[in-house]
Amino acid sequence: MRNIKLLIEYDGTNYCGWQIQGRNQKSEIRIQKKSVQGILEKVLARVLQEKTKLIGSGRTDAGVHARGQVANFRTKSALDCPSIQKALNSILPHDIRIEQVKPVQPQFHARFKAKSKLYCYTIVNNSFASPFQYRWCHLVKHPLDIKKMRQGSCYLIGKHNFRSFQSNDHQQRPSLRTIKRLNIRNSRDMIYLDVEADGFLYRMVRNIVGTLLEVGRGRLKPESIKQILRAKNRIYAGPCAPAKGLCLMEVRYKKDVNAI
Amino acid sequence: MRNIKLLIEYDGTNYCGWQIQGRNQKSEIRIQKKSVQGILEKVLARVLQEKTKLIGSGRTDAGVHARGQVANFRTKSALDCPSIQKALNSILPHDIRIEQVKPVQPQFHARFKAKSKLYCYTIVNNSFASPFQYRWCHLVKHPLDIKKMRQGSCYLIGKHNFRSFQSNDHQQRPSLRTIKRLNIRNSRDMIYLDVEADGFLYRMVRNIVGTLLEVGRGRLKPESIKQILRAKNRIYAGPCAPAKGLCLMEVRYKKDVNAI
Repeated sequence: MRNIKLLIEYDGTNYCGWQIQGRNQKSEIRIQKKSVQGILEKVLARVLQEKTKLIGSGRTDAGVHARGQVANFRTKSALDCPSIQKALNSILPHDIRIEQVKPVQPQFHARFKAKSKLYCYTIVNNSFASPFQYRWCHLVKHPLDIKKMRQGSCYLIGKHNFRSFQSNDHQQRPSLRTIKRLNIRNSRDMIYLDVEADGFLYRMVRNIVGTLLEVGRGRLKPESIKQILRAKNRIYAGPCAPAKGLCLMEVRYKKDVNAI
Repeated sequence: MRNIKLLIEYDGTNYCGWQIQGRNQKSEIRIQKKSVQGILEKVLARVLQEKTKLIGSGRTDAGVHARGQVANFRTKSALDCPSIQKALNSILPHDIRIEQVKPVQPQFHARFKAKSKLYCYTIVNNSFASPFQYRWCHLVKHPLDIKKMRQGSCYLIGKHNFRSFQSNDHQQRPSLRTIKRLNIRNSRDMIYLDVEADGFLYRMVRNIVGTLLEVGRGRLKPESIKQILRAKNRIYAGPCAPAKGLCLMEVRYKKDVNAI
């Protein structure tokens, strides 16, 4: 059995997220949209002529995009990697692309072996968004004080209990995470928040962005981020920022498990 | 009557082009898609509370995009320009945005006063296109020799009869045009062709790109461009490149007619 790693890009607009919606989902509404994982498994089965379980580095929510999602699968197929990539890309819809296919060591596991993940959240701070950007950014019309957002973001860097930035569903699990980097870049009317951490809680990036946007528009002081962290309660943080601005940029692994 | 100039961006994917499809169109097929001009005139009428004729700098074909289309209209409305812009952008679909609204001199005419236009044609030279680019680029899978494309493009610069690069429909009109600039840039797998001219014949940019792509893949020699120009016959040039790669970047005007 070979272990194969995929590097995947997708425009999440038309998907219910990365993960296949299982029967144990709480939602009573019949989900109409497809999952990226579901489509990939279907196409992989066609290409490899065998049923394949795809392990993703983690979920992305409905509407969230990826430029560097990683997944792996085990296969008995002898098909070489360039041929797998070519076959997948010729069948997949245009909003999902396979950037790379490569053999990895048997112990490589896209989820458990991930060392850190890097997300980027894109904001357009203007009265309108360009037709060439609006699918992948969150439009904020009121003025934002980026300097204050940067001040507020500093309190989040390092190892903290991020329970205040975790959406309520999964409050029972451990909430300690380490944010290695939180960088706010801006260029003309665009603002980019790069967040790298060893792991993320449910909706953590979007809750952080929503809270920093409250700081940016003057509704919260930069120092209040410190108190919100301490409170360990979701109700003190700002609203969850929309999914469309979020993109999984990169999943980092230890070098020794990365390739054969 | 004020004369107002609009700077417009649109993603042409879902439109039949800039121009309203008149009854004198040859096509017998009922056109399903809307035109950008048609939508803008409808929204303008709603915002200004009067019927308005919008003069565009020129047509763009079905599926062609614009980052700098220019149009003007005359109005009795007293509504100030920022309010017009805000109102238009709040009603328009996401794939059409008004970048700028400003009063111009009475003699300003978006079409007749244009000095030159700048188009950009985007090619992805790879086995696949990114989900974040594929709407706005033409995917070319076979290798391209950019150096040869540049050599071939040199023959097109300057004042020429471009009849060979004009789609057949309008062969009776004068075909002399001046290409002021034809620049081929590349960065990783992306190739951008910037073409600036005092005017363009029907499908001229796409026919030029299609011909230079034949040079790039070795089916035509760079020098053959000279002969194709001389032939003044469409059959000698290469195929028309797809609309989705083309974008109207800028329309240039003489300074004295540009603003009040």
